[in-house]
Amino acid sequence: PRRIMRRLGKVSDIQSFSEVRSIERSTERRSLSAGPSLSRLRRNAADDFFEKEKSPIIGQVRDSYILVEEKNCLKIIDQHAAHERVLYEKLKNEKERVKKQKLLVPVKIELTLKESEVLKDNLKTLDDLGFDIKKDSKNFIINSVAAGLEKIEINKFIKEIIDDLLNSDRIKKIKDAREKLIASMACRGAVMAGDKLEPSEMEELVEQIQSGEIKTCPHGRPVAIELNWNEIEKKFGR
Amino acid sequence: PRRIMRRLGKVSDIQSFSEVRSIERSTERRSLSAGPSLSRLRRNAADDFFEKEKSPIIGQVRDSYILVEEKNCLKIIDQHAAHERVLYEKLKNEKERVKKQKLLVPVKIELTLKESEVLKDNLKTLDDLGFDIKKDSKNFIINSVAAGLEKIEINKFIKEIIDDLLNSDRIKKIKDAREKLIASMACRGAVMAGDKLEPSEMEELVEQIQSGEIKTCPHGRPVAIELNWNEIEKKFGR
Repeated sequence: PRRIMRRLGKVSDIQSFSEVRSIERSTERRSLSAGPSLSRLRRNAADDFFEKEKSPIIGQVRDSYILVEEKNCLKIIDQHAAHERVLYEKLKNEKERVKKQKLLVPVKIELTLKESEVLKDNLKTLDDLGFDIKKDSKNFIINSVAAGLEKIEINKFIKEIIDDLLNSDRIKKIKDAREKLIASMACRGAVMAGDKLEPSEMEELVEQIQSGEIKTCPHGRPVAIELNWNEIEKKFGR
Repeated sequence: PRRIMRRLGKVSDIQSFSEVRSIERSTERRSLSAGPSLSRLRRNAADDFFEKEKSPIIGQVRDSYILVEEKNCLKIIDQHAAHERVLYEKLKNEKERVKKQKLLVPVKIELTLKESEVLKDNLKTLDDLGFDIKKDSKNFIINSVAAGLEKIEINKFIKEIIDDLLNSDRIKKIKDAREKLIASMACRGAVMAGDKLEPSEMEELVEQIQSGEIKTCPHGRPVAIELNWNEIEKKFGR
């Protein structure tokens, strides 16, 4: 099945990062083929950004990992594990009710009898987690989603959540209904391995990982591995 | 001392690679803040390039290594070792005389007596290697350099070569004068660790490494190390 296209959050004002970065390089060292008028346009857009700091992001590999240049190591971030944990913490830490994002057009979802029952049992908890879902005569109508998950394919997302509740061993083992839904939502809502990310999306994800204490995904898998520069240099015989 | 600024070779027609790459991503998935007119400008410049193939270069780290995404591994290329070997092979394989690049303005170089003698002893070999250097009354005048080394700081470069001939154990051990000069020229002419590279320069260097059988620098150090994707995935518990 086609992968869910979604965004990590708000679109940044700056041009995509790597564009800006390479422009910066061209202008600081020498001018290549890039016309000066074009460069100037970009710089203007980026000025605010560079007054802050330079991003350590090198790029995305295999559409699955984000490479980050740190002082002591080359860090490889697993985009899915990292985003899953970020979503998990976000949903979990909203002590009361998760902020809702009203859909411009409510989405109708058709379910089997079995699926309907599972959904019905979880409507209250889903509501607390930002999903306003009402029972129609035969179907369900989704009126709002959790803020931060605006860009998911809502119909597919809800079916995957129900599927998790019915089938996923990992989820079924959790006793608390809210926790069960959070675990499923975080996994299903996170970017997948194989999803191309915009530079701004990478920036945002890396920022969330670097600033916090996030070391593993909710299942305990590491969100990042580190290759020490000293070790790399040793391999090169330096 | 300030690092020598130089180029690996001809400037490519396309915009810097990572700019083009991220533009491609924006337009294929969704439009970010980049204005359409700007994107169109870039696409036009890049169209020819994308008809060929997509580069596997992710970027440069620590201004020293080039990261390349390969099917089976993440390849980390040592830019200095790689370029040194490329120059070495190029100079070595020109069986007769290396092509000369005439300098627009001949460069005068002042030397100590000892340095002058070493240079004088090697003028014929240097001429074969593309360096046309004439003795003035007191100084030396450089009229041409080896093609491919046009962008070196010629004065500094020649002094480093002389320095190698006088002091470097590695060079002194080599008996053949031509071989001695080639080894020194390759090392001194190559980009250094710490030199920022343009995307087009990375492209060119990586192409030369990937296409050939180059595994080590002239001293036997590896030009690249490979991190297998399977191993990386194992570390992530996948």
